[in-house]
Amino acid sequence: MNCVTLLTDFGLLDEYVGVMKGVILTLRPSATIIDISHGIPPQDVSAAARMIKTVFRYFPEKTVHVCVIDPGVGTDRHILAANAGGHRFVAPDNGLLFPLLQEIRVETLVRVDNSDFFLPEVSRTFHGRDIFAPVAAHLLRGVSIAAFGPSISLHQMIPLELSTPRTEPDGALVGTITGVDRFGNLLTDIHHLDLERFAPPETPFEIRVGEVILPGLSHTYGLPDGKSRLALIGSRGYLEIAVSGGNARQCLNVNVGAAVRIQKGKTPPSLE
Amino acid sequence: MNCVTLLTDFGLLDEYVGVMKGVILTLRPSATIIDISHGIPPQDVSAAARMIKTVFRYFPEKTVHVCVIDPGVGTDRHILAANAGGHRFVAPDNGLLFPLLQEIRVETLVRVDNSDFFLPEVSRTFHGRDIFAPVAAHLLRGVSIAAFGPSISLHQMIPLELSTPRTEPDGALVGTITGVDRFGNLLTDIHHLDLERFAPPETPFEIRVGEVILPGLSHTYGLPDGKSRLALIGSRGYLEIAVSGGNARQCLNVNVGAAVRIQKGKTPPSLE
Amino acid sequence: MNCVTLLTDFGLLDEYVGVMKGVILTLRPSATIIDISHGIPPQDVSAAARMIKTVFRYFPEKTVHVCVIDPGVGTDRHILAANAGGHRFVAPDNGLLFPLLQEIRVETLVRVDNSDFFLPEVSRTFHGRDIFAPVAAHLLRGVSIAAFGPSISLHQMIPLELSTPRTEPDGALVGTITGVDRFGNLLTDIHHLDLERFAPPETPFEIRVGEVILPGLSHTYGLPDGKSRLALIGSRGYLEIAVSGGNARQCLNVNVGAAVRIQKGKTPPSLE
Repeated sequence: MNCVTLLTDFGLLDEYVGVMKGVILTLRPSATIIDISHGIPPQDVSAAARMIKTVFRYFPEKTVHVCVIDPGVGTDRHILAANAGGHRFVAPDNGLLFPLLQEIRVETLVRVDNSDFFLPEVSRTFHGRDIFAPVAAHLLRGVSIAAFGPSISLHQMIPLELSTPRTEPDGALVGTITGVDRFGNLLTDIHHLDLERFAPPETPFEIRVGEVILPGLSHTYGLPDGKSRLALIGSRGYLEIAVSGGNARQCLNVNVGAAVRIQKGKTPPSLE
Repeated sequence: MNCVTLLTDFGLLDEYVGVMKGVILTLRPSATIIDISHGIPPQDVSAAARMIKTVFRYFPEKTVHVCVIDPGVGTDRHILAANAGGHRFVAPDNGLLFPLLQEIRVETLVRVDNSDFFLPEVSRTFHGRDIFAPVAAHLLRGVSIAAFGPSISLHQMIPLELSTPRTEPDGALVGTITGVDRFGNLLTDIHHLDLERFAPPETPFEIRVGEVILPGLSHTYGLPDGKSRLALIGSRGYLEIAVSGGNARQCLNVNVGAAVRIQKGKTPPSLE
Repeated sequence: MNCVTLLTDFGLLDEYVGVMKGVILTLRPSATIIDISHGIPPQDVSAAARMIKTVFRYFPEKTVHVCVIDPGVGTDRHILAANAGGHRFVAPDNGLLFPLLQEIRVETLVRVDNSDFFLPEVSRTFHGRDIFAPVAAHLLRGVSIAAFGPSISLHQMIPLELSTPRTEPDGALVGTITGVDRFGNLLTDIHHLDLERFAPPETPFEIRVGEVILPGLSHTYGLPDGKSRLALIGSRGYLEIAVSGGNARQCLNVNVGAAVRIQKGKTPPSLE
């Protein structure tokens, strides 16, 4: 198995991503390298934690997922490597892998400290090139994860709690806008299972975001009646707010961090 | 043959493109995946139709070109797959492939409806991952295009007419700015064959765009006399408006949709 | 050896990069193609010259590095190909390779003019597709570099002098901001060896940029005391100005071209 994915906040203007790929291919010429995203907002560990948790399962088994959102590079933060859920992961010990490893079966978790597998010269500023890339290549070459450093338990990782929806005294389920995609769709932290638990099938509910009220869920982005605001379960399994044929962030004028409030029992007369 | 190209409006900030690649490589580990562009303006089917028509011939024969500009995802729109011109194409039935398939020899055209070749669970919001990617991988694996669904004729496709230049009563050829590239070059819908038909070699003509008049065609972006506005036949075979060493969109202050007017018979005294 | 890198100013919105990859894979299906960057500012030959010089050594030996920042495309500028430092390079003769080839051992340097290795039809506007990509593919296929055209000497190349720090009459070392990365880190032209020569270990110095004075070098981007401006040797080996947990360009309000002034002999009482 020869797949490596890269998930970073490096962007694509600079040479950082290309250099990591060069290092991987130098050590493992047959590697297949896939970019998950390099557009994570700078140093936003939570955004990357949400993303890797959702997407890793769409890659081949045994893929090595390298996640470098690393504001602590060069300090005494640790680096982790894990075998979990049939995949392999390498990331700084800053919470990035914490939510994922709570959810899936972890076979091995180690602190990466064996410099035999690093570049000969390790800078204080670019461990993506000097440590993460060569460690990924050595994993592809068949080096056992135990060779990279001492085994640790999940409790020894730096924890990270992602925001989750809460139930308010008046019975409303309140979540948060966690991101905006290229289409202007507003992503939330309300998982479809949260929503089904809150409002079982046939229970009517309405969704408030900004100054807008949406009458329950739609099934697609495209609505027969042209431009319209809507809520739906997006491809990640979470509630999204969209505007059919338009840009929800612009139309609704809300941003990351805004509340999304769901209340039962109101059935509006028709789709807004 | 193992090449897949991707042409989408997904952008590169989100994980959508990476996830499609993960699905393809899961089903076809030896695939070579090439990004044509993920920067098509959101839901701009015409822009993608122009692009795939121009570029497909630069890829290896039998390449599978996957085009996902798909505002109708999850509605009852169909999905098409075609063998045509020695290549293979998969796209929503929304006009995207229509201009291309009018121009090249179509061997097979099918409506993709055989869910044996989809991911086991198909969302209503991300067919790129759940249908287009696995269909492309199965094509690479050698599945015959007829296996994906019933054969249809070109007349059964959703049509799309791209803008083309028109001749006005005063004899002028009038085209449209259809796009702007990274250098600020203004792309038009005036093909070099349109221009040759309108003004055979040695026939002088002038080109008006915005408030600027250009004295015929240049041959390169670089002019000996420094910054200068110019018109030339670009690498796609269409008339482009450029500024040597500068950005034509900014210098000329025109945008997509503006008219480009060509009139015969005027020979300006010298290059502006 | 099958690696090609691409370094251009084409951006990723248009299809130009994808088309170059299509041409390479048509001629060399087993090629591994890596993007170094396509975000070089349009026509900024110096930025590309700095980048390729720093990064080529992180790619596998014998990699073919294709650099297309080419404002003179279609004019009478030449194209160069070189075997040097164990790698191979193809670029316009506009200075792009000049600083690199001054530094490493050059085995062969030729002017590329043998159109047997170009696409059958060569446009005046897109040599990336019509010349650079096929030449790279033929190099991977084992064609000797001498087959591409006549050998020339380094003195026959178009020269390019990158900015370097100067020593001022008052003894200060003055360099220049040459770029800004995605994190807002300000990149300079002051190499760590320049700095060590100027201020040997244990010699105190201070760094002025814009209205800010920095007390010597830090070792990492992350500082224990939260947001703080700092100077450090970045991963390219050059002095960088950063803001821990923030964006130096925004915080310091300086831009490319600004001066960075280093003076010996002042020891500030404490970190700002």
